[in-house]
Amino acid sequence: MSDANRRDAEFGCQIRKSPFFAATERHGCTGYSVYNHMYIPRSFGDPEANFWHLVNDAILCDVSVERQVEITGPDAARFVQMLTPRDLSSCEVGQCKYVFITSAEGGIINDPVLLRLGENHFWLSLADSDVLLWAKGVQIHSRLDVSIREPDVSPLQLQGPRSRDIMCALFGDWVQDLRYYRFVEFELDGIPLVISRTGWSSELGYEIFLRDSARGDALWQRIMAVGEPLGLHVGHTSTIRRIEGGMLSYVTDMTIENNPFEMGWERLVDLDMSADFIGKAALKAIRNAGVRRRFVGMEIGGAPLAHPNGQHWPVRVGEKVIGKITSAVYSPRLEKNIALGVLDIAHCEVGTQAKAETAYGQLQVTVVPKPFFDPAKAIATS
Amino acid sequence: MSDANRRDAEFGCQIRKSPFFAATERHGCTGYSVYNHMYIPRSFGDPEANFWHLVNDAILCDVSVERQVEITGPDAARFVQMLTPRDLSSCEVGQCKYVFITSAEGGIINDPVLLRLGENHFWLSLADSDVLLWAKGVQIHSRLDVSIREPDVSPLQLQGPRSRDIMCALFGDWVQDLRYYRFVEFELDGIPLVISRTGWSSELGYEIFLRDSARGDALWQRIMAVGEPLGLHVGHTSTIRRIEGGMLSYVTDMTIENNPFEMGWERLVDLDMSADFIGKAALKAIRNAGVRRRFVGMEIGGAPLAHPNGQHWPVRVGEKVIGKITSAVYSPRLEKNIALGVLDIAHCEVGTQAKAETAYGQLQVTVVPKPFFDPAKAIATS
Repeated sequence: MSDANRRDAEFGCQIRKSPFFAATERHGCTGYSVYNHMYIPRSFGDPEANFWHLVNDAILCDVSVERQVEITGPDAARFVQMLTPRDLSSCEVGQCKYVFITSAEGGIINDPVLLRLGENHFWLSLADSDVLLWAKGVQIHSRLDVSIREPDVSPLQLQGPRSRDIMCALFGDWVQDLRYYRFVEFELDGIPLVISRTGWSSELGYEIFLRDSARGDALWQRIMAVGEPLGLHVGHTSTIRRIEGGMLSYVTDMTIENNPFEMGWERLVDLDMSADFIGKAALKAIRNAGVRRRFVGMEIGGAPLAHPNGQHWPVRVGEKVIGKITSAVYSPRLEKNIALGVLDIAHCEVGTQAKAETAYGQLQVTVVPKPFFDPAKAIATS
Repeated sequence: MSDANRRDAEFGCQIRKSPFFAATERHGCTGYSVYNHMYIPRSFGDPEANFWHLVNDAILCDVSVERQVEITGPDAARFVQMLTPRDLSSCEVGQCKYVFITSAEGGIINDPVLLRLGENHFWLSLADSDVLLWAKGVQIHSRLDVSIREPDVSPLQLQGPRSRDIMCALFGDWVQDLRYYRFVEFELDGIPLVISRTGWSSELGYEIFLRDSARGDALWQRIMAVGEPLGLHVGHTSTIRRIEGGMLSYVTDMTIENNPFEMGWERLVDLDMSADFIGKAALKAIRNAGVRRRFVGMEIGGAPLAHPNGQHWPVRVGEKVIGKITSAVYSPRLEKNIALGVLDIAHCEVGTQAKAETAYGQLQVTVVPKPFFDPAKAIATS
C-alpha cells in the first residue's frame, strides 16, 4: 500500500492518466512517456518482442493521448477547411483524412487524423500539441458559428495482420468491409465507440475510440478476452515499425518550424482549391521558391544500434553540417540501422554519402528511399 | 556507455531537454516530470530536505519548462491586453504582472507571469499549455500587427531567504534594490540574461532567464560556484511550500473548465476597464450570476500523509460529493496535512467539516483560511 501510494504520488496530478491506465499497469507497463499532457505506455520490457507481435500477430495499444478536438455548429465544415491545406470538399461523413494543421507561416502545428462524424461534426485526432487552444484562438475573430471542445474520447489501437479477425470476433463480420480510413459508430455491451480503419503502425489495423472514459477497463478486458486466443498481445506504438514505414512523429521529426513541402507531403496541400485556409499565401511562396531541406530516409552503417537515438544527431559532409537525423533505430527484420531526418536540399538525393555524429561515434550515412518496408497491405491510401 | 545510451534513449526526442539538463543529471536528479513538452527535475531524493533548503537557505531550480511566448510589433501592447482580463495600462517597462489568459467562455488557459521588456515587447512566462498556439490563433483574424514566437529563453529560479545575498554576490549590489515583480536585462560573462524578482515558491526569490541555450552549463556552474559557499543547494520547485503558500498549479488545481473568480482571483479581473479582452462578456455574466464553486484551503486529519496525492480526492458531506482535493501534502513545518481544492459554494465556508476519499482511506477535512503560511517577506504584492 505504501509503495502503491508512492508510485501514485510519482505519477502525480499534473499529467492525466488514460482510462486504460489501470489495465496497462496490470499488464506490467515498465515505462511511460507524456504526450498531450497524458501518460502513454512506451514499454513492456522488450521493444523487439513488441515489434514482432505487431508484424506477425496483433497488438492492443493505449493511445488515449491522441486527444480529440471536436468541432460542431453551423459553420463547422467551413471552419475545419480553414484549418488545413488539404481539400476536404470530397470528405464524406464516415470518412477519415490525414491532414496537416498549418500556421499563417505554413508551419506544421499538428498532423492529426480528421474524422467527419456529420456534415458539421468533426474530430481531429491529435499529435502532440494543444490544437484545442489553436482552434479556439482562430475562432475568436473568425465570425464563424462553431463550438470547439475536447470530448470524452480515448482511442485504442488494434494493429497487426491478425487485427481483422480479432475485430470481426469482437464486433461482427461487417468489419471485413470497413475500408481504409473509414469509420462507423458502434456500441459494444452498451459502451459507445467509434471504430475506424486507421492507425499509426504501417500495418493493417484499427482504432477503437472509447466515448465514455468510465468504461475503459471494461472495454479493455472485453477486447483482451476475445483477442488473446486469436493472437492479440498487449503492446505499444512501435518505433521500429513506424520508422520502417517512414511515418512522421510530430515533435520528434517535425515542429512548427517545418512545412508540409519539406516533409514530402505535397499531396496534402491543395493550393489551387478555391477555399481559403490558414497558411495558403505562405505555402504558395514556399512552393514557388522551392524548399531548402527535405525529410529523407537514411541507412546508418556500423554495428546494430543498441537503442534508438535520444538526441537529434547532426549529419555532416566534410566539416559542413547538412542536417540531422531525427529518428534512428535498428530494424531486426531488415537487419540494418534505419533512420529518418531532414537534410539540406543540396544533399538529399538518394545515394548521398555523409557522416552522422551519433551516441555510438561517427557513423557512415547513406540517403535511401523510404519507406524502408512497405507490404502490399499497407499501401492503401486515403 | 551502453547504460548511458539506454538512459538517453529512454529520455527520447519527443520531450525536450533543458539547457540545464546535463547539470541536473550531474547533481543526481532522481525524477523528472514533463511540462510544456520539456523535462523538469522534480526530485533529488528527499522532498522534505528540498523544502528545508528552500525555507532556511536557498535553492537553484531548473524551470526552463516555463517557456516564453514573445509578442512584439506595433500592436503588441493592444494584443497582449486582449489576451488578459488584468488591466495592463499601468504596467511599466521592466515590470512583471501575474495574469490569467482566458478563453471566450472565461476559462483559464494559463496563468503566466507577464514581463514587459519594451513598450511593444512582452514575454509570457508560461504554465503548462501551448499559449504559443493560442496567441498565434487569436492573431489570425485580429488585424493586429504583431509577431509571436517562442524565443530562446530558459529560466532558473533562485529562491529562499539567502537568495538576495547570493544574487548580490553573483550580479552586484544593485540586486538589493530590485523590487518585487521588477526585472532588469543583464550580462554575466557575456551570457545574456533577464533577472527578475519573481518565483513560484512563496519565499523571497529571483528568476534568472537565460537568453542563449548554448550557455546553460556555464551559467549553472557559475551560479553554483558563487552560491554554494553562501548556502545554495540544487533543488526543485517545492510542492510543500507552494501548497503552504496557497499558490495555484495549472492543470493540477485548475484547467480551462475553471474561471478566475472561482479560483479567488477577482483582483486580476478588471471588468470595468475600457479595453476589450477575450472573455469579458462571459466573465461579466459569471460575476453577476455568482460562482458555483470556490478554491479553498483545507486541513486533512489522520496520520501524516506519506506522499502527496496522485489523484484528485473526492470530498463528501454525507453521501454528496461537494468537490475535490486537487493538491495535498504533509507540511513538516506546520506538522499537519494541508490541501487545496475546489468545493461547491454552499460548502466552502471556513470551518466546514467534510470527508475526503483518499489513498489513505476516508479522512476528516476542515475548510481553513489560506495561505497556510505567510511570512511577512512573501506578502509583497504586484
